[in-house]
Parts: sequence; C-alpha cells; structure tokens
Amino acid sequence: MNKLLIVGTVAFDAIETPFGKTDKILGGAGTYIGLSASFFNVKSAIVSVVGEDFPQEYIDMLINRGIDVSGLEVVKGGKTFFWSGRYHNDLNSRDTLETQLNVLADFKPVVPQNFNDADVVMLGNLHPLIQSSVLDQMEGQPKLVVLDTMNFWMDCALAELLQVMKRVDVITINDEEARQLSGEYSLVKAAAKIHEMGPKYVVIKKGEHGALLFHNRHVFFAPALPLEEVFDPTGAGDTFAGGFTGYIAQSENISFENMKNAIIYGSNMASFCVEEFGTQRMVRLHKEEVLERLQQFRALTQFDIALETAK
Amino acid sequence: MNKLLIVGTVAFDAIETPFGKTDKILGGAGTYIGLSASFFNVKSAIVSVVGEDFPQEYIDMLINRGIDVSGLEVVKGGKTFFWSGRYHNDLNSRDTLETQLNVLADFKPVVPQNFNDADVVMLGNLHPLIQSSVLDQMEGQPKLVVLDTMNFWMDCALAELLQVMKRVDVITINDEEARQLSGEYSLVKAAAKIHEMGPKYVVIKKGEHGALLFHNRHVFFAPALPLEEVFDPTGAGDTFAGGFTGYIAQSENISFENMKNAIIYGSNMASFCVEEFGTQRMVRLHKEEVLERLQQFRALTQFDIALETAK
Repeated sequence: MNKLLIVGTVAFDAIETPFGKTDKILGGAGTYIGLSASFFNVKSAIVSVVGEDFPQEYIDMLINRGIDVSGLEVVKGGKTFFWSGRYHNDLNSRDTLETQLNVLADFKPVVPQNFNDADVVMLGNLHPLIQSSVLDQMEGQPKLVVLDTMNFWMDCALAELLQVMKRVDVITINDEEARQLSGEYSLVKAAAKIHEMGPKYVVIKKGEHGALLFHNRHVFFAPALPLEEVFDPTGAGDTFAGGFTGYIAQSENISFENMKNAIIYGSNMASFCVEEFGTQRMVRLHKEEVLERLQQFRALTQFDIALETAK
Repeated sequence: MNKLLIVGTVAFDAIETPFGKTDKILGGAGTYIGLSASFFNVKSAIVSVVGEDFPQEYIDMLINRGIDVSGLEVVKGGKTFFWSGRYHNDLNSRDTLETQLNVLADFKPVVPQNFNDADVVMLGNLHPLIQSSVLDQMEGQPKLVVLDTMNFWMDCALAELLQVMKRVDVITINDEEARQLSGEYSLVKAAAKIHEMGPKYVVIKKGEHGALLFHNRHVFFAPALPLEEVFDPTGAGDTFAGGFTGYIAQSENISFENMKNAIIYGSNMASFCVEEFGTQRMVRLHKEEVLERLQQFRALTQFDIALETAK
C-alpha cells in the first residue's frame, strides 16, 4: 500500500455560521486532510503538534481510521492551536474572530522514520519554512508533492513561499490567492504564471464554483456538487486536498488524466464536509456514500454529444 | 428542417469595458440568439422591431445567415432601441448608462404565418405580455417553449411574468434573478420553487461560473470555458440561449439527456461571444471552430474513473 504523508494543523475551531455556532470542536487542516484521505487504500500519517489539552479521544479517532500519529507531537503543558471565525450570510467569506497560535508557534515538524519514504506528500497550509523542513527530511524524491497555502503567507513570507513552491509538483490555491500571487485577474493567465514559479500542476479552488486543474495548456474542471444547503464551509479545501492526494496515492498514477479523477474525488469528499459543522459529517461518512456521490458527479458532468449531429 | 421562432430585441448598443469602448453597434437579444442559432441546421425567424435608422446591411447580414426577417418590423420615422452600459473591472457587473426604448415602446409582435407552427419558440427577454402575445399567435403547442427574463420584470411586471411562466417548458435565468424570483439563496431550492411556477426545466446561468440545468431531482452542469481574457460579456446569455434552442431544434429531441448537450452547446457558443466587442466574434465565427471548441469542452469536463479503483 502506498504511503501518504500529511503535514498540517490539528486544532480546535469555534465556528459561527448563519445556521448556528459551536464551542471548541476538532479542526485543523491536517485533521481534515487525514479524515478525507482515510477513505482511500493508503497508509497515511499526520505530522503535527497539539497541546496537553487535546483530548485523547480525538487522537484515538484518528488512530482508529488507520492514521499513523507517531509524528503528532503532544507538548506537555502546552495549549492546542485555536481558531475561531464567523461566516457571512453567503458563506463565501468569513471574519477571523480569534487566533491563538499556542504550541504551533514553535512547531518543528519531525517526519516519522517509517514515512520519510512516503510516495505522496501533502503539505497543508503552514509557514513555508515548515513545509520546506518536511521536504528536507524526505529520503529521495516523493512521487508527488502537493502544497496548499494561503494569502497570509504571500503577505508575510513571500520569499520563503516562492522557495518551497520550486520544490513541489502541485499547488492548491483559491481563486483570489491565485490572482494575488500572479498579479493576473484571468485564472488562465494566473495559472500559467504560477506554473512558471515551479508547480507543474496548478489547482485553483473556487469554493461553491468548483475547482480547475491546469497543466501546461491543458485544463480540467470539477464542479462543486449543487447542494440544498451548505451548512459550514470550514475544512472544505483541506478535505478536497485529502481526497485529491488520497486518491492519487491509492491509484499510484500521477498522470494528468488520473489527476482529473483526483479532483473529482476531492470535490466529492468536500461536498460531504460542508453538510455539517466541522468534522461531524466526515466522521460518520461511509465509503458507500462516497461511491454513490461519485455517480452523482457523473450525472452532473458527463454528456454524450454524437459528432455527426454537430453539423 | 425544424423551425425555430425567436422573439427578442434587435438594437443598437454602446459598450464600455476595461478594454475599450464602442460607438453604436449592432446588438439586442434577438440578434444574438439568431446569430448563435444560425450555426445549427434549423429554419429560424426573428420577430422584432427596429426604426428607420437601422442599417440595411445589418438586416442583409441576418438574411445571409438564413434567418427569416419577415417578422422584423421596420417603423417608418422610428428610432431603434438603444442601450448603453459600462462594465466594472471584473466584468461581472455593469451600470446602464442610457436606455432609449424608442420603437420598442409600442412593439406588437406579429408572428409570420410560415412560423406560427414553429417547433421551438425562444422568447427572448422582453415584457412578459409581449412574450405571451407571441404564444397566443402559435397554432397548436410548440414542441418546446423557452423563456428568458430578467429582474426588471420581476420588479415591475411580476404577475404577468408568473402568467407567461405557466406556459413555457424551459426558463433561463441568472443566479441572482433565480434567488429574487424564488426567495431562496440555495440554487437547488430556488430551482425547485421555480419549477413549481411552471417550467419543467430550469436553466440557471452563472456567467463565468457556468450554467446549471434542473429537471425534477436531476441536475446537470456546463462550465464556462476558462478563457485568457473575457473581452465583452454583452450578449453572452442570449448567445447561450441561441445555442441551446438551435441545438434542440436541430436534434428534434427534447429529452433531459439531450438538453445536457444543448447547454454544452449554449456554453460553447457563449464562449466565443465574449471574446470580442458585441457581435463581432459571432459574425466571423466558423462551424469548424465550434466543433473544435466542443472537443475543448469534452477535455474540460469528461473523466473516466474505473469503479474498481474506487474501493
């Protein structure tokens, strides 16, 4: 079975949406990526850090899903990273109410020895230097390295971000961030510029409007599934990344054709994530539901135009 | 060959985008619909009105594309409908600078006798009473009636709009208008409510974010083609409608499966329209380019996930 190494936060979130609010619940990019990837036949590990306040039951839940947590450092006396935010009515934008870095401030990721030969590495959204230090610890070149990042690092660690971008195969980024990073409004032009910065594959996430995969002059599009209600978008992008990398690692195929399937799986997993608060939906999700939704994605996008009718 | 009856404005537009501005150029929903539908093997006619100031060369151009203009009334001494607008930098919104109704104010559409048995009727965006009066003139029930409308009529002629909606099979409407008409933010819920108002098929246009086709519990999505540059969005929605109805009329098939193809063709045609000012691109477009772009839409959306890999 192929190995997937995941680096990303394991954290507490407090979320407000138009539909309700939560107390501190399980969150973090690493958590969402790991939960999503656990639906694929891969050996995955999360490298992250939490404080002593982090409940053992959350760690047990990850272990029960087959995720290796030997790289999840628990800092004695430390407090877990905490984020709280409030979504606007359209759920497309949010305000951060509070960020407590806590143990994340001094996070030095240590890749477990049994995962320094991972086939696929998913670098969740963290300081680019932390992302780089994970790559430094790998033995040889992984088959695929995927990087997620955000506007915050473009504002305050651009040079380091540009450095780590040269070392990755795929970048996932949202539309506004792609525009900021490239200085281009057109996403086609933005992807071409980001491509020149290193990543051979550029995935631009557009939230409810789907995701685009660019590779040289090729482009593929995966829509978001139209839902009756989006309840909480938190973690959707990370869940997408977990589905993308989980599927790639499982299928052992890093061709562009197979990456199309991977972003369909990414969208598939993300469509569940947003149905409930935080990780709730992902925790009770079954593989059968994922396969059923794959059929919905087919029905949503596949067509059959006979060329002879196209006179 | 099947007959397509088009009702919509034939007009002058003056357009400003971040890329430049035009003087009075050829525009109008009927014009865009007709040009787009002329790429399909159908007999089409435009019912509309212009003033004496409307250049004969424009009318000749429509005739040369095989469009019947016997229902295009030329009002002696009248002035042609004129609209001018300025697009914002993101091209997703615009301000109307000037609207001169002119001959449109007294428009009484007269369906030519040889088209009162049309197979497909495309009711372009006009006052709902004008749209109704066209349906009143049809002999028997057309195989498919498609209605386009806009928020303006929801604000000032809602009762009349709801009346004509009961008489059509398909409505095309943009996302904001679907929300206004239904009072639902979720487009899935909005489509369900609009469905109850009459149309069995609801097409929600999302501009650069593509178009959704709803029918009962089924949904299909056609993306917009990602372009290096959108030059001028004017007429894109009408060009979409022309491709949709042109393809349906040509293929003589009003099944949901075939409507999927029709909205792909609608998106295909619209992707050309936005590449240049006004009708410029549509006027010099060739069928070969449409077929080539159909391959691009395939590459953009079609995937092949083997179910056995989806363990």
